[in-house]
Amino acid sequence: MEIEKYQIDAHNEKLDATHKQRFSFAASENARVEEVISKLIKFQIAIPSWALGTGGTRFGRFSGGGEPRSLEEKIEDIGLLHKLNQSSGAISLHIPWDIPTDYDAIKSLAAHHNLRFDAMNSNTFQDQADQKLSYKFGSLQHVDKAVRQQAIDHNIEVIRQGVALGSDALTVWLADGSCFPGQLNFRKAFQNTLESLEEIYAALPDAWKVFVEYKAFEPNFYSTTVGDWGQSLLYASKLGPKAYTLVDLGHHLPNANIEQIVSLLLMEGKLGGFHFNDSKYGDDDLTAGSMKPYQLFLIFNELVDGMDAKGIDHATGLGWMIDASHNVKDPLEDLLQSVDAIMISYTQALLVDRAALTVAQQENDVVRCQEILQDAFRTDVRAIVQEARLRSGGAAQPVQLYRELKVRENLIANRGLKTVATGL
Amino acid sequence: MEIEKYQIDAHNEKLDATHKQRFSFAASENARVEEVISKLIKFQIAIPSWALGTGGTRFGRFSGGGEPRSLEEKIEDIGLLHKLNQSSGAISLHIPWDIPTDYDAIKSLAAHHNLRFDAMNSNTFQDQADQKLSYKFGSLQHVDKAVRQQAIDHNIEVIRQGVALGSDALTVWLADGSCFPGQLNFRKAFQNTLESLEEIYAALPDAWKVFVEYKAFEPNFYSTTVGDWGQSLLYASKLGPKAYTLVDLGHHLPNANIEQIVSLLLMEGKLGGFHFNDSKYGDDDLTAGSMKPYQLFLIFNELVDGMDAKGIDHATGLGWMIDASHNVKDPLEDLLQSVDAIMISYTQALLVDRAALTVAQQENDVVRCQEILQDAFRTDVRAIVQEARLRSGGAAQPVQLYRELKVRENLIANRGLKTVATGL
Amino acid sequence: MEIEKYQIDAHNEKLDATHKQRFSFAASENARVEEVISKLIKFQIAIPSWALGTGGTRFGRFSGGGEPRSLEEKIEDIGLLHKLNQSSGAISLHIPWDIPTDYDAIKSLAAHHNLRFDAMNSNTFQDQADQKLSYKFGSLQHVDKAVRQQAIDHNIEVIRQGVALGSDALTVWLADGSCFPGQLNFRKAFQNTLESLEEIYAALPDAWKVFVEYKAFEPNFYSTTVGDWGQSLLYASKLGPKAYTLVDLGHHLPNANIEQIVSLLLMEGKLGGFHFNDSKYGDDDLTAGSMKPYQLFLIFNELVDGMDAKGIDHATGLGWMIDASHNVKDPLEDLLQSVDAIMISYTQALLVDRAALTVAQQENDVVRCQEILQDAFRTDVRAIVQEARLRSGGAAQPVQLYRELKVRENLIANRGLKTVATGL
Amino acid sequence: MEIEKYQIDAHNEKLDATHKQRFSFAASENARVEEVISKLIKFQIAIPSWALGTGGTRFGRFSGGGEPRSLEEKIEDIGLLHKLNQSSGAISLHIPWDIPTDYDAIKSLAAHHNLRFDAMNSNTFQDQADQKLSYKFGSLQHVDKAVRQQAIDHNIEVIRQGVALGSDALTVWLADGSCFPGQLNFRKAFQNTLESLEEIYAALPDAWKVFVEYKAFEPNFYSTTVGDWGQSLLYASKLGPKAYTLVDLGHHLPNANIEQIVSLLLMEGKLGGFHFNDSKYGDDDLTAGSMKPYQLFLIFNELVDGMDAKGIDHATGLGWMIDASHNVKDPLEDLLQSVDAIMISYTQALLVDRAALTVAQQENDVVRCQEILQDAFRTDVRAIVQEARLRSGGAAQPVQLYRELKVRENLIANRGLKTVATGL
Repeated sequence: MEIEKYQIDAHNEKLDATHKQRFSFAASENARVEEVISKLIKFQIAIPSWALGTGGTRFGRFSGGGEPRSLEEKIEDIGLLHKLNQSSGAISLHIPWDIPTDYDAIKSLAAHHNLRFDAMNSNTFQDQADQKLSYKFGSLQHVDKAVRQQAIDHNIEVIRQGVALGSDALTVWLADGSCFPGQLNFRKAFQNTLESLEEIYAALPDAWKVFVEYKAFEPNFYSTTVGDWGQSLLYASKLGPKAYTLVDLGHHLPNANIEQIVSLLLMEGKLGGFHFNDSKYGDDDLTAGSMKPYQLFLIFNELVDGMDAKGIDHATGLGWMIDASHNVKDPLEDLLQSVDAIMISYTQALLVDRAALTVAQQENDVVRCQEILQDAFRTDVRAIVQEARLRSGGAAQPVQLYRELKVRENLIANRGLKTVATGL
Repeated sequence: MEIEKYQIDAHNEKLDATHKQRFSFAASENARVEEVISKLIKFQIAIPSWALGTGGTRFGRFSGGGEPRSLEEKIEDIGLLHKLNQSSGAISLHIPWDIPTDYDAIKSLAAHHNLRFDAMNSNTFQDQADQKLSYKFGSLQHVDKAVRQQAIDHNIEVIRQGVALGSDALTVWLADGSCFPGQLNFRKAFQNTLESLEEIYAALPDAWKVFVEYKAFEPNFYSTTVGDWGQSLLYASKLGPKAYTLVDLGHHLPNANIEQIVSLLLMEGKLGGFHFNDSKYGDDDLTAGSMKPYQLFLIFNELVDGMDAKGIDHATGLGWMIDASHNVKDPLEDLLQSVDAIMISYTQALLVDRAALTVAQQENDVVRCQEILQDAFRTDVRAIVQEARLRSGGAAQPVQLYRELKVRENLIANRGLKTVATGL
Repeated sequence: MEIEKYQIDAHNEKLDATHKQRFSFAASENARVEEVISKLIKFQIAIPSWALGTGGTRFGRFSGGGEPRSLEEKIEDIGLLHKLNQSSGAISLHIPWDIPTDYDAIKSLAAHHNLRFDAMNSNTFQDQADQKLSYKFGSLQHVDKAVRQQAIDHNIEVIRQGVALGSDALTVWLADGSCFPGQLNFRKAFQNTLESLEEIYAALPDAWKVFVEYKAFEPNFYSTTVGDWGQSLLYASKLGPKAYTLVDLGHHLPNANIEQIVSLLLMEGKLGGFHFNDSKYGDDDLTAGSMKPYQLFLIFNELVDGMDAKGIDHATGLGWMIDASHNVKDPLEDLLQSVDAIMISYTQALLVDRAALTVAQQENDVVRCQEILQDAFRTDVRAIVQEARLRSGGAAQPVQLYRELKVRENLIANRGLKTVATGL
Repeated sequence: MEIEKYQIDAHNEKLDATHKQRFSFAASENARVEEVISKLIKFQIAIPSWALGTGGTRFGRFSGGGEPRSLEEKIEDIGLLHKLNQSSGAISLHIPWDIPTDYDAIKSLAAHHNLRFDAMNSNTFQDQADQKLSYKFGSLQHVDKAVRQQAIDHNIEVIRQGVALGSDALTVWLADGSCFPGQLNFRKAFQNTLESLEEIYAALPDAWKVFVEYKAFEPNFYSTTVGDWGQSLLYASKLGPKAYTLVDLGHHLPNANIEQIVSLLLMEGKLGGFHFNDSKYGDDDLTAGSMKPYQLFLIFNELVDGMDAKGIDHATGLGWMIDASHNVKDPLEDLLQSVDAIMISYTQALLVDRAALTVAQQENDVVRCQEILQDAFRTDVRAIVQEARLRSGGAAQPVQLYRELKVRENLIANRGLKTVATGL
């Protein structure tokens, strides 16, 4: 299924008058609105191939219907999202779930949907059917060099797949760790992991980056071998200039100040990318901005400030990706909500009066610092985000149009009710 | 110092044009704006007498200047706040810090500032200079009946003070608990506390309420004898119809869902009052809405929904109070920011389309449920709150006017730089 | 496979001299050792049928081999455990995973292994293949009465199964809750759940109990409808005298004082049973005592103290069960370790000098209170637990004998390497 | 007051028979007992000068009596502790609270009590009476270079004091951070702090070390500028080889795996020292081992393993110190309990069968790994610790003898009931 331009136009037409009034008010209130819009238009958030089906927990999974049955259908789904919001122009693949059979066909399908291939993701947290050695006790950290080698080879194969598709980054998320005190020698686990990463690093083509993702816990419940930003930074620093830390919002201990971590990683030149989601308890993988929208804004506030200070291009300097699990919502609607929340936070961060903030900080005027940030956060920027979307050819109200066009019903009709997205 | 009407008028005049434009847009977008404003005008948040000076931690305290040196000056300070925002028309006293010498004089001073006396607060978490027995090992829970009796008598004395001033509620916050495993017999501590509360309850005049506040930890670091809402509800249920639970936002374990607690307490008819503040780690006592504004909105969403369902008047049905500590901000500016954040959240909660939400809930349309709540939260309601404030005679921008009028400089000139608010 | 008496005897013989020396020292140090041993012998911990296979997380599962393929094989596995430790003489079934085909055969199989049928567990957190309506949006809380009725009927069916087998309790763990703000009306969800539970309660035979289990989060990540002990107690109180709260150690928010909860529930006469496991982050379901053994001891300290105060028989008054997930260990070895840790904690709690503790508490001698508890905890009670096990006919070192007898290799030979325990 | 040798001898005599029996059993069970004892004898834990008086919280402080009124009396108190346990042979001073008037007199007083001067502690978290500029908004991070310079100068002065006394390390704990979003530019705060530390570092004498302590929160409640081990390591790495990270057990986010942090810092050669205490919620500063004794053991397990791997001497390679707050116990009894718990954990860690553990780890035998650690932890090592203490001339039961000799009553008689330890 594809959404046609005339369908978007008709939808936009209907909502045009209301939008114009709101945008005109927003523009009258914000002098820099055009500059903001031009940044919004360039800002694209990658969609991971595994987020298109219904997610679940260890207790079960309640599948919806019409889930993509192949890489082609995953691309089709992201194409639908991107058509609607014009901000989801990239796909992040997961190997082995998404190995193409025909690379050229896949590349032209993606091009047809205006999608580029974002960071490639390896998988050493599960055993595949045909796999020789098990990752039950880790992969890159494993006490047995043969297991480590298998995991290294897999990562190098993922790079090879990425090169064939035109990606330029590898994300390594490791489930490696331990469930019980004593299970691991922490230092040896670190050293094994480092040596394994060095072999993978050596296989990176020029202009490629490797992102070392950290996570505090789950699926291991005592220790994780890349457990926090400090550990990730240690690996990335030892590896070299192509290695960066990747921040996933749900991968922290309770109460962590993530925006400070983001700021310091930018300071060190080692922030590589981002996995957006939201959470209340652990790695809940909820819709971005659904639980702590102010935190999302504060993170974007640091991103904008730090990237500008370092001369990093907002659109291309870091890897932006959603990583969420859609357990009770239609995955495509959920992704539309996430992208929307991200664009809203980014817009609010762009509206922060940075000159005034710097003065207030210099004067230790804490009341004023808060006022400046909250002034931006309390601003209703939805019309600005919508204007940017409209100028890019997207829909005024993506979720609404998605429902009007009965996209899900259509996908179910085409793909069936009991499909399971590959990989899940 | 008092702020004169002409000063407020001059300030409002200056900001009038901008406000009119913003409010007119807000009104055009929200059909129920007048109904909302009438509710906002009635909504008053009590200021505790101990929040007018600079706060601190066990590591130290960096006092500002011009802090109130007497109950009279505390009332004067709240009078200033109320003059500016017209939403702080109540004061909550703390005994023994605020024992009046002349009740009639104090009552007419409060009346002069349009303030009423909110819930009275007892203090059994510190030893006073002239105190016979120590609360080192608890008060109402104490193993020694003589200590319990002293604490009971103190609470009854607080009621007596409150009666003299026209208050009609007693808030009992107990530091009682233990620092080490084994220190307490939990059941006996509960029973002692219950019996002590029963004696206090028996001394409540008709039409009085007692609020049993709970707190997870601090100043005790192993157990607290009224430690969570479940325990508070148990006490309140056993005590009788005049006893209620009081919720302080900072008194929970990490990640607690406070809005659900609020909802269930309303369901049980046992929610008595609220202490507003914000926090990231523990009982940080930060400015309301400064850390988790969405949580504050979600709490108000439950309050509005639950009070309406139970037929509870928003303005008078529950006790609304700020309880914060102003360590790095001017206390009066901090309180203005807190009240503002509370009014914003309340307004957004009033704007929630409840009919649509009920339908979406009934249909398990989770995407729509979120859209409905976030539609209200993302709305910029500041002009609505400002309009309500203006109609009540308050200032367009309270913090701004406070600074223009150099209130703090004035207070310092009158009271001195090295004053310490009584009680701190 | 069954373990023969002569095999246990041979093993015990080998370790006899060492044990005798250790036990004789332990006996010389603890005057009440015989009284303790007689209690240990009676203390039995139920094993849940679902804990016999390898567990996993949403990220994957690394199965071991020889897992039970049927209810008969599950009973066989628990029979092996009980033969080894003589403390696992009960099985807790899960419906629909464990519906017997021949009740008499199952009952005599269990009797053959000296096992009784502990609390029955219902399942409304997953959809079964043949199920008419989905539990995606809850079961007993569901907005649709038809779904609620289906879940009620299922629970009543579980009772019926339990009656046929001779069980006398139903454990209701509900995944019901919400993943996003706004998804649920908390009060209606509570009321629906309560009404559903009332129908189930009405179907309880005389002498049956129903345990209402609470859990803070997972699989729902915003709210849970039986989310903490306060909510569970509210349901149990409204339901009536047959309804109790069940405490699972992993179902709390970070830093919760579980032992205080246990004590208060005992005080209220509403503690029904226990699910043992351990955790560091969330519901990690690790081996009991593997992470926080002092907490386990403190819980037993409250259990012993509270049960004795209320005249509750240690062995039969409450439901004792392990609920863990064995992701990286052999499930049977893991269960042996859990039972051992529980017996050790129980023994240490029995050794606490309660008379001295009461005096120290009465004198607020906190140092002494701690000394008394830690004196018991620091005591090496393994020889006492071993002596109790030996007197009951169990093995001196259950894990060691399990390995000597190559039980797992045997089970793999009989059942195959790639089996999956039913239900997982 | 001093405790005489004959008093210790009389006490030990009385308990001799029982001890001999217990130690003889312990020795018969542990082949390496003599090696362990020789390590215990050398292991000394510094006592901070500020831990000798009653502590408190922001809510109040319930002082005991007989608290030291001067540096001389603080040394006297630690002398008492060391006399009793022979494991507290060092004092850690805090400037400006402990500036000596006569260095030689202080040094010979310390020598008289067999105490050496451990790390010196600076104080920039409070304003002193005579201080020119305020630390309200930070010290080494401050936006104003003049404030930073004042704090730098203070730290250099602390070094100077330490040199005069024979100390060789400086501990820098910074309260620096922020209470509200926006208050700080995180990167500038880091850079300012780093530059300030560089100036202090430059003033370090040869053979001195500087310890950079980290803390997640309190007294700042939004961000801390040395907030976690990752940040501390970043500072220490940038500063140079004399700079190390200091770990305080209470300074982490909930659920942090501290033992892994310890292990990795040792791996990096950057673990400098330790502040022992225990906690349930935040920086509760409770008696070491009173809340999570298994965690304390696991930390020592990593310390022993990592120090041995790196060839670091247990007794002299790292700085060992207690940092606790004694709110409800007699401070001296509390310190005796802490030292005892530390010695017990250290002993248990020394008993771990490391060769077997390495094999089990290599075989991924998780069950066995746990058995090996818990075998050491479950061992009652109190007689071994007592034997070490006796051989050093200490008391069999320090707390018991402290009470028998009525030390506290004595100190109250000498110093008065209402004294307040200087600095608090």
